[in-house]
Amino acid sequence: MIIVLSPEATPDDIHRIVARIEESGRQAHISTGTERSIIGVIGPDLPALQDMFETLPHVESVHRVTKPYKLVSREFRPQDSVIDVGRGVTVGGTELAVMAGPCSIENEDHIVETARAVKAAGANILRGGAFKPRTSPYNFRGLGEEGLRHLEVAGQVTNMPIVTELMSVRDIDAVARHADIIQIGARNMQNFILLDEVGKLRKPVLLKRGLSGFIEEWLLAAEYILAQGNPNVILCERGIRTFENAYRNTMDVNAIPLVKQLSHLPVVADPSHGTGKWKLVKPVSMASIAAGADGLMIEVHPNPDHALSDGAQSLTFESFTSMMRAVAGIASAVERTLSGVEAPAAAG
Amino acid sequence: MIIVLSPEATPDDIHRIVARIEESGRQAHISTGTERSIIGVIGPDLPALQDMFETLPHVESVHRVTKPYKLVSREFRPQDSVIDVGRGVTVGGTELAVMAGPCSIENEDHIVETARAVKAAGANILRGGAFKPRTSPYNFRGLGEEGLRHLEVAGQVTNMPIVTELMSVRDIDAVARHADIIQIGARNMQNFILLDEVGKLRKPVLLKRGLSGFIEEWLLAAEYILAQGNPNVILCERGIRTFENAYRNTMDVNAIPLVKQLSHLPVVADPSHGTGKWKLVKPVSMASIAAGADGLMIEVHPNPDHALSDGAQSLTFESFTSMMRAVAGIASAVERTLSGVEAPAAAG
Amino acid sequence: MIIVLSPEATPDDIHRIVARIEESGRQAHISTGTERSIIGVIGPDLPALQDMFETLPHVESVHRVTKPYKLVSREFRPQDSVIDVGRGVTVGGTELAVMAGPCSIENEDHIVETARAVKAAGANILRGGAFKPRTSPYNFRGLGEEGLRHLEVAGQVTNMPIVTELMSVRDIDAVARHADIIQIGARNMQNFILLDEVGKLRKPVLLKRGLSGFIEEWLLAAEYILAQGNPNVILCERGIRTFENAYRNTMDVNAIPLVKQLSHLPVVADPSHGTGKWKLVKPVSMASIAAGADGLMIEVHPNPDHALSDGAQSLTFESFTSMMRAVAGIASAVERTLSGVEAPAAAG
Amino acid sequence: MIIVLSPEATPDDIHRIVARIEESGRQAHISTGTERSIIGVIGPDLPALQDMFETLPHVESVHRVTKPYKLVSREFRPQDSVIDVGRGVTVGGTELAVMAGPCSIENEDHIVETARAVKAAGANILRGGAFKPRTSPYNFRGLGEEGLRHLEVAGQVTNMPIVTELMSVRDIDAVARHADIIQIGARNMQNFILLDEVGKLRKPVLLKRGLSGFIEEWLLAAEYILAQGNPNVILCERGIRTFENAYRNTMDVNAIPLVKQLSHLPVVADPSHGTGKWKLVKPVSMASIAAGADGLMIEVHPNPDHALSDGAQSLTFESFTSMMRAVAGIASAVERTLSGVEAPAAAG
Repeated sequence: MIIVLSPEATPDDIHRIVARIEESGRQAHISTGTERSIIGVIGPDLPALQDMFETLPHVESVHRVTKPYKLVSREFRPQDSVIDVGRGVTVGGTELAVMAGPCSIENEDHIVETARAVKAAGANILRGGAFKPRTSPYNFRGLGEEGLRHLEVAGQVTNMPIVTELMSVRDIDAVARHADIIQIGARNMQNFILLDEVGKLRKPVLLKRGLSGFIEEWLLAAEYILAQGNPNVILCERGIRTFENAYRNTMDVNAIPLVKQLSHLPVVADPSHGTGKWKLVKPVSMASIAAGADGLMIEVHPNPDHALSDGAQSLTFESFTSMMRAVAGIASAVERTLSGVEAPAAAG
Repeated sequence: MIIVLSPEATPDDIHRIVARIEESGRQAHISTGTERSIIGVIGPDLPALQDMFETLPHVESVHRVTKPYKLVSREFRPQDSVIDVGRGVTVGGTELAVMAGPCSIENEDHIVETARAVKAAGANILRGGAFKPRTSPYNFRGLGEEGLRHLEVAGQVTNMPIVTELMSVRDIDAVARHADIIQIGARNMQNFILLDEVGKLRKPVLLKRGLSGFIEEWLLAAEYILAQGNPNVILCERGIRTFENAYRNTMDVNAIPLVKQLSHLPVVADPSHGTGKWKLVKPVSMASIAAGADGLMIEVHPNPDHALSDGAQSLTFESFTSMMRAVAGIASAVERTLSGVEAPAAAG
Repeated sequence: MIIVLSPEATPDDIHRIVARIEESGRQAHISTGTERSIIGVIGPDLPALQDMFETLPHVESVHRVTKPYKLVSREFRPQDSVIDVGRGVTVGGTELAVMAGPCSIENEDHIVETARAVKAAGANILRGGAFKPRTSPYNFRGLGEEGLRHLEVAGQVTNMPIVTELMSVRDIDAVARHADIIQIGARNMQNFILLDEVGKLRKPVLLKRGLSGFIEEWLLAAEYILAQGNPNVILCERGIRTFENAYRNTMDVNAIPLVKQLSHLPVVADPSHGTGKWKLVKPVSMASIAAGADGLMIEVHPNPDHALSDGAQSLTFESFTSMMRAVAGIASAVERTLSGVEAPAAAG
Repeated sequence: MIIVLSPEATPDDIHRIVARIEESGRQAHISTGTERSIIGVIGPDLPALQDMFETLPHVESVHRVTKPYKLVSREFRPQDSVIDVGRGVTVGGTELAVMAGPCSIENEDHIVETARAVKAAGANILRGGAFKPRTSPYNFRGLGEEGLRHLEVAGQVTNMPIVTELMSVRDIDAVARHADIIQIGARNMQNFILLDEVGKLRKPVLLKRGLSGFIEEWLLAAEYILAQGNPNVILCERGIRTFENAYRNTMDVNAIPLVKQLSHLPVVADPSHGTGKWKLVKPVSMASIAAGADGLMIEVHPNPDHALSDGAQSLTFESFTSMMRAVAGIASAVERTLSGVEAPAAAG
């Protein structure tokens, strides 16, 4: 941490600040400039310390120089993490992970039919919501554990690992029992008790970025999980909230390569939520893979205009199949694979 | 809901859309324009229905015309709600509510000393954090139930009701046992299971707006609580996340009068979190009361540069006292009272 | 400027960076830490230099430690600037400046009638638009110089200085000839050539904050004007663009006290544009004065539902009069005056 | 336009609103619902009318149903516009347009050297700044017309059309004389007088999106140019301002496919400004082309750490060459071409 003093700080003022630094168990290193002095603080840069130093008299600004996370950082582990999510599927390697399925599980037939269709189109992980976070208390909130059982059946029938959202510590046993990957939704990115609890498991966790989550906060949320001993975290970019209202959210494609540079964890993209518009899902999926994403999470519904939630952003089986062929072309251009999907003949 | 069709929609297309509307249990009312037709949908405007209609072929846009919340709306209850929070204190009436205290409870002496000081300066509710949401897993996360006991002692000693944050359903019994007002923090504004659970209690709930919470979402979060039967909700504006980085958050003072127009619930302002800068707490507190807030929530610490959290936004006893005198002047100008605080002599 | 090096930087790397710093005409001061070294750069912190240092190999981050503006800063001039805008009116002193009038000037009778009404209610500066920035090319774009002449007549009849927007260097002579205060609109906050040109005049300039203008950028825009020799700048906060869509813009009340702390220039608030909703103009005006604003800019129209622009945010004469009485109460509480307006009897 | 009335509107109130609609030269079409009535307004949806209707008593909300732009819309012209920018280069066809060069032109040798290098790597249009918008008045502001002459020489030597920014009507003759494409920068997206003036020319105009420009506003800015008779507009997405501070701006890749759906105009991407970080330029360029962009605008400098501006986002010749090879792979996957660039062998 670097503390910049105001020009009027006297040697006595500096002395008092140094005393306060040492009281916090850190060492101070003073640089006296022509106009103002600067104090380097040796030791880990906890955000709380920055706050504290900012309140000291004659302190103009405090700059953190080290990253606040450690276990998730690329410096701590230079090689990519590859997460085994079961049934022979991994996330973070050469093969892209494609998680597809409906927003909400509606009944067993519905999820099995969807599972078969997305598998046929090249998906390798099945998604489906049983516990649904809904903005209004009057909306359909999911089938709960009954939905989990339907989802598990569909995963078995199609031999795909399954991913579903955990909304509360209350449901952790049920979700962990049925699911291969536990999803932490955007609204829970900073539900720290939930992060602690999934950190105590060893199941893979899909951690979505919050709607207003700084990339640093998102990585710190992952650090919560790793700090409890669970290294199996997959990050998921799903759009941020900006001033633009032409889409429901603004998919932040930039986050994908930046997070890959800062962290060893795999990153997947969710253009369905990221844009909220089915007409943008295909091009933004292609963009995400081109930017380096390790996979996609896509909402697919047999009949989006009858979906119980999020119809406006769901693809039909037909449009998902078309999207997968286009994505396969991009995958090939970035030396990634998408098994079982035939890319269109290259134009070049 | 109003469905605007694209110009190329044929009578057959319209017929199919009407059939789909009727299938959803609603009635359709068609207006044929010169260029395009418009269908009015009679019945409640659920967000999920909007999604669904947006996916129908030849639908250009869907507009909701009714508000998605009911119990919290001013139309449902025209008069202001006044919430009794215990020990003779109410929130939402003529007398302003001032909740003051430290970010984190550090020990019994610390919270009792702070309670006495803020009460002497005119606060009527004591705040203090026992369970602390922290961005980094390596920061101090609060004393937990031990902190609640210290807080309760301080409330008894000074005869002030106490407010503290509940972070998880796990701790609901402990928090409800000790606290007079249960705070739902900004990060949990859309923790819907937590909202359901505090809705089953009758304790007053202080519901903070999320960092990227639309006002409509915030009111829907309150609707979750009222829908479970708990009418005792106090809204708290605490700053939103914008592009501006000169403050930690951007206190949205506009939300105060707008929410007072839309809802009967009381609204308090938290300029400590709302700005993150202690130098802005006094003027933004004054602004909030001038804009119609029913009270304030202010971080006060005997020694902000030794605070275990959020020192940069905490006031000292002295600066809190000065702030309260200034706020009393504003309160008087807007026909509110702040018992026991002497406003400065008016200049006019 | 402080340059933080990555841990792997060798003494040779550091040597090369120091050489580059010295090449830029600055001195380097090296602090060797246990984990990483830090270089202090002595000399003014130009943003362009920060960019450049960020590209050097083994540089992890670059932190500016001095403010990039000088003439507008409170350090450069500790006492408040008080701007004389003509006809005995000043902005920045104890007396509040209230600029009121229609968005667009429609004809001479219209502006004279409005001028008389706003003066009667306590306004001391007349506003009106002759050159109108309009989002769509198909909207009414103002009467141009004819409008300026009507505005000047209305100013003479009511003995009020007048303020109007200058959109282009093309119209600078016309606007400077007729107006007492030249307004630079939000969309032109960073029209640097326009800033240079009004800097060459001595007329007071009202500089609005851009919709996505950092406070630092806004102060730098003012610095452009002062650097050309014109010290008569009045800043105007008029709302920023955020995710929230319940208002047209989000009035950033926090900016008012912060800018007053950073700069000696006066700051006025424009809640009409700041919120875009006439129902919020009164409470947000009150909040702005409570927060320390030196005045207000308010849209008033004899008949808002017949206004040629911005009707949704305009007050009627009656609601403006009511607002002024409420503002007078707040003014009195913050030791400001609003001549000729009777505050409501204080409640306290 | 659709006007939703509040439930308490009486037949008399409705009558008065209809009269006001008819006064504006439009027809009203009333739908009486069980709870509230809705009025359809037949005729073009000017934003100013929406404002006006919102002020009428008993109006709850006003919804526009038609797009406010016409000439730029895909409905007006279904086929893609292909813009001829000179020297045999077009923008908007199968061949991608790659505009590359330095942020600022520094001298003739510098720009000629850069032109040769970017051409060798596959660029087909040369960019360079002669008039530079700079946040601080103390930064280098470009060589002006001397810079234009150097740029023109470099374009001739390498047979590439040139693009450069026009900041003010003052310089329009000089820029139009030297440049093949006139760039309107982000800060001038809503400099309506400048838009009018370039609309009167027939030179291609590159119109950047403003930092807080809604997509609708950006298309309306283009409409200004087309409405004056100049159809040769190229849109350029260059990042928006969001809460995220890990990049200088947040490149909005979603805007690319959406604008291609809404408009027939070509769209290019500027990841250099869009992210402000050279390490993100390559992946975000790839993403932009995958999302459907018609080309790129890239900052390249022989020696970024000696650049007079924007070094932090500039590529070296070497990194630009590497980027172009990667982009060629993506281009081929989306059936676009990038003449003279050899894509890496596909992996698939």
